[in-house]
Amino acid sequence: MTAILETFSAWRAERGAQIRSRVTLGFIPTMGSLHEGHVSLVRRSREENDRTLVSIFINPTQFDDPADLMQYPRTLENDLSRLRTEGVDFVFVPREADLYPDEYQYRVRENVLSTRLEGAHRPGHFDGVLTVVLKLLNIASADRAYFGEKDWQQLKLVEGMARAFFLPTAIVACPTVREADGLALSSRNSRLPPTDRKRASQLYRTLSAAPTSEVVSRELHASGFDVDYVEDWEGRRLAAVRLGSVRLIDNVPIEGRR
Amino acid sequence: MTAILETFSAWRAERGAQIRSRVTLGFIPTMGSLHEGHVSLVRRSREENDRTLVSIFINPTQFDDPADLMQYPRTLENDLSRLRTEGVDFVFVPREADLYPDEYQYRVRENVLSTRLEGAHRPGHFDGVLTVVLKLLNIASADRAYFGEKDWQQLKLVEGMARAFFLPTAIVACPTVREADGLALSSRNSRLPPTDRKRASQLYRTLSAAPTSEVVSRELHASGFDVDYVEDWEGRRLAAVRLGSVRLIDNVPIEGRR
Repeated sequence: MTAILETFSAWRAERGAQIRSRVTLGFIPTMGSLHEGHVSLVRRSREENDRTLVSIFINPTQFDDPADLMQYPRTLENDLSRLRTEGVDFVFVPREADLYPDEYQYRVRENVLSTRLEGAHRPGHFDGVLTVVLKLLNIASADRAYFGEKDWQQLKLVEGMARAFFLPTAIVACPTVREADGLALSSRNSRLPPTDRKRASQLYRTLSAAPTSEVVSRELHASGFDVDYVEDWEGRRLAAVRLGSVRLIDNVPIEGRR
Repeated sequence: MTAILETFSAWRAERGAQIRSRVTLGFIPTMGSLHEGHVSLVRRSREENDRTLVSIFINPTQFDDPADLMQYPRTLENDLSRLRTEGVDFVFVPREADLYPDEYQYRVRENVLSTRLEGAHRPGHFDGVLTVVLKLLNIASADRAYFGEKDWQQLKLVEGMARAFFLPTAIVACPTVREADGLALSSRNSRLPPTDRKRASQLYRTLSAAPTSEVVSRELHASGFDVDYVEDWEGRRLAAVRLGSVRLIDNVPIEGRR
């Protein structure tokens, strides 16, 4: 039975009782529009914990572009039925006023990594991500929280925040799930027209094959991608590109490849 | 028996066991140099909780003035013996590297109240306060944390952060403790030369008696105080003044006095 949490205080009581009887909880924060990538996090959580909680919340403070927020896919009924099928125990679908009683007056700010790469192209994005993740982790009180490696920079920032703020929840990184042609699963893929969808697989192929980030950038540009960045950072090659109005990000390990 | 916590992870295990057996914990974060104001928080915590934890840490990130940080009184042996006498169960005396493994890369920022009053005179002060309080609250995992009303703006910001970030710890406000002549207890009082110590009591007397904040400001200035501000804010009259190199703050309720 999948229960939808009604109020935060009811959940706090429930989770308090779980903790006292040593019931472990895994938590997966999402923005909905769930795909196999999210499902892989849910399955990992169910393997490693007694109970699993998923949140669905399209967090406005992490969108630097209002058009992107408006166009972000919303598929709540599908999402809930998928979570039921996967045997998720609890789902939390907060409204904005539930999570931002302070109207975003209190924020988390990271001042080194968050201004680079994605942060340089999306001002304020990571303040919004870290702030909402902190709120959700505090509400969930989980033993473990699951994040995909596709959003590599986000993953590193969340891990850093958890260490810096002594959060009691372990952050668990999970491998990127890909389509057969290599395209990393993303809710935004659904917005790609068929011809762009076909070309999109080139992002991963080029990232994996080209010898340097400069070559990746040149090849993608030559193939008609708008390249926001391709950059090597701490053993990882990260890229962000645009095809029409759809922005795609991906990353691959570079250690042992040189 | 008062135990001094050696490591954060040992405490986490201990506190986890306490939580499972419903042992409640009260927490008092301090910068040491303990006086009767701190002791009143400790006593309140001991009344309301099964166990009491006190931290002593002079937090460098909340000092905008390096000279103030250097001159801040350090009386660790006295502090520990006082806490033993009061029957405190646990004391946490972290080093800077324990609390800032991130070197202050991750911060809490509040963007309305923290730039006014104290915040206007001490840039970055409240970022430092909120960041260290968040870290300490997460480490402590207490049921209740105790803060004095003397630092009214700090109290309101900590309460706001706890609500905004859904911290599981209840923030408990405790009345200011005063000397017989009305001077609010403060670690900085020990730095007042005798003549200034005598004059200092005028701050509270004037704050309580004068009809408006403008009159308070004028009277204090006429008596030789350097006035940083006297301002009414949400039912409270707050003031900061300087006597020589010592800065004093205080506040009183104004509701029902007009």
